[in-house]
Amino acid sequence: MNDMNKVGIVGYGITPFTKDDKKIESILLDSAKELFKNNSQINRDEIDAVLISTNNNSKYLSPVLSEMAGIQPKIAHTIESLCNSGTNSIVSAYSYIASGLADMILITGAERYDSPGQILEWDNSRGEFKHPIFWASIFAKSYKREFSISDEQLSIVSVKNHKQAKENPNALSNKTYTIEDVMNSKKLTDDLRLLDCSRPCTGSASIILASEQKAKQLTDQPVWITGIGQKTISAGFTKNISFSSMESTRLAGKTALKMAGKNIENIDVAEIHDAFSVCEPMALESLGFSNDGKGTSMVKELHETNNFKINPRGGLIGTGHPLGATGIAQTIEITQQLQSNAGNRQTENPQAGLIHNMSAAATSSTVLVLEK
Amino acid sequence: MNDMNKVGIVGYGITPFTKDDKKIESILLDSAKELFKNNSQINRDEIDAVLISTNNNSKYLSPVLSEMAGIQPKIAHTIESLCNSGTNSIVSAYSYIASGLADMILITGAERYDSPGQILEWDNSRGEFKHPIFWASIFAKSYKREFSISDEQLSIVSVKNHKQAKENPNALSNKTYTIEDVMNSKKLTDDLRLLDCSRPCTGSASIILASEQKAKQLTDQPVWITGIGQKTISAGFTKNISFSSMESTRLAGKTALKMAGKNIENIDVAEIHDAFSVCEPMALESLGFSNDGKGTSMVKELHETNNFKINPRGGLIGTGHPLGATGIAQTIEITQQLQSNAGNRQTENPQAGLIHNMSAAATSSTVLVLEK
Repeated sequence: MNDMNKVGIVGYGITPFTKDDKKIESILLDSAKELFKNNSQINRDEIDAVLISTNNNSKYLSPVLSEMAGIQPKIAHTIESLCNSGTNSIVSAYSYIASGLADMILITGAERYDSPGQILEWDNSRGEFKHPIFWASIFAKSYKREFSISDEQLSIVSVKNHKQAKENPNALSNKTYTIEDVMNSKKLTDDLRLLDCSRPCTGSASIILASEQKAKQLTDQPVWITGIGQKTISAGFTKNISFSSMESTRLAGKTALKMAGKNIENIDVAEIHDAFSVCEPMALESLGFSNDGKGTSMVKELHETNNFKINPRGGLIGTGHPLGATGIAQTIEITQQLQSNAGNRQTENPQAGLIHNMSAAATSSTVLVLEK
Repeated sequence: MNDMNKVGIVGYGITPFTKDDKKIESILLDSAKELFKNNSQINRDEIDAVLISTNNNSKYLSPVLSEMAGIQPKIAHTIESLCNSGTNSIVSAYSYIASGLADMILITGAERYDSPGQILEWDNSRGEFKHPIFWASIFAKSYKREFSISDEQLSIVSVKNHKQAKENPNALSNKTYTIEDVMNSKKLTDDLRLLDCSRPCTGSASIILASEQKAKQLTDQPVWITGIGQKTISAGFTKNISFSSMESTRLAGKTALKMAGKNIENIDVAEIHDAFSVCEPMALESLGFSNDGKGTSMVKELHETNNFKINPRGGLIGTGHPLGATGIAQTIEITQQLQSNAGNRQTENPQAGLIHNMSAAATSSTVLVLEK
């Protein structure tokens, strides 16, 4: 890296994930209002950019939110990259600050339960199989075969993440489930059941990033973005080298850890993009948290020891998955963990956390490292 | 500014603006292919980011274009801000390079003639008056009244820009018109006629930005981005202080010139966002090229002396306005001018050029300064 400005997280706002049928403009405003309520020290006149993360088809949402929130930013636009729009926006904000073009940036991610990003219309080669569950099924079949993993073994991901979501007041789910419950939930494909899937929902999450100097003025608990890694392999998942691991995640993770000067052993808490149960062990393996084929064993051990290290807020499976808000919500969770503000979800004195956010069969991934 | 990397334009590709009914994926690929054809020295493996500028509702277009073009970028997403999506993408690419996160970036802007960005759906207070022509009419009425300008006087903008577009092989229009032609064209509102309007069209424009070191390796005619200014006042145009000037343009222009260390007198050639005829004199005045109320006189003089200084490619009125491609196409024109590659449109040995790109009644504006 060059002589960059350090970039910190100075405030956030998040509201409950629901099945509400509301206009995207109102959903965006929900978490932005919550942010300003929680952070009265932030002067809206000093916000240089407002970035919107969403798959919603409405246009010009940054000026719309800015006007509603009383902000007149320099930089204002929407960023879309399906399910990792949120972390793409955070990386973009990071670069605006690091480059000196901006000093303080509001990022708001929001989505409706019926987001057009949930259907992979762009990949005509998929024929009827446009719903993400179809690639996830191929992943599940391939992963289970390669590593001799059973459906019961995979179920532990959903059991753990629903349990953890119960401690998250903003999660869509507030029920716990047993392995039997997961196995008995509706079979959607040969390899995946209803409780293996994250659910689309309506959600909103906002975060403020600032330069080092401004961050230190505004909070005595800044959290720093110290590692960034991104990689896009393709758009169509058939270009993946393997259906049992995530190449874009592996490369993004490596880059992010290198930038932060960390090894995976130094990461105390992580948000993993568990769009479907199989994604959690696959991502844990591709990031190096676990050896290949041992991700479900790791999840099982964490569950049995009641260790919230992976997906403390309940993951996408427990919390719900409002596409454009997910990456922001993941980043807020790691921020709360590092600030020891995570309530019953708090892990033990974490110093460094990681966020893994991906799109469309891991054809693209973002990995961020955050530190106190 | 901090100790930034210098950012240069090292290559571009642009294809004719048409009324073609093609898929957005194909339109994006058109100018990207043209770019790589014209710039065989560029190694696709060294492209760190692919940014898409469009209002199209299709998702995940950056990975889609990347896959088609044989690129595996780190950073990949779509940027939307209605009509100034293009320059928003360029500023974003600038910051990725200046921050050190990327070394070389492809930006492709594309739009279909039936872009959803042409209807201001987000502003419910407009009732039926959702088409941009309605704000433009209010601007025209207000501007004409305040400065005692006649419809005939405004017509010169269209006459000049169609004349200039005739020298642009990629322009939608290849006809010249007289003031009488403009006055006799179909009246669309009390204050605007058909030939006062830019036309929606299908278009594609691509550009490659790189760090100073890489730019100098790749081209002996790099063009540098030396000034950047952006401002959003609101989303709804009723928040404008005046309907006879452009406040966001004035502020963005001031910031861009200050960053470049230039005065408006130092600008030799400029692209101005003439979505409607009245926008050209208003923008010229708000940028300081002309005194208030004297913009049409300036346009008339340029036309009479056959001086292509303002909107050499024919502006939006002559070239057509494919929303997401416009800001990129404007930037390509100024690049060609500074490289003395503008054919019959060439202005005399320009050293510094300016791009003005705005959205929705100038509620937001971007101004860029480019130099040899």
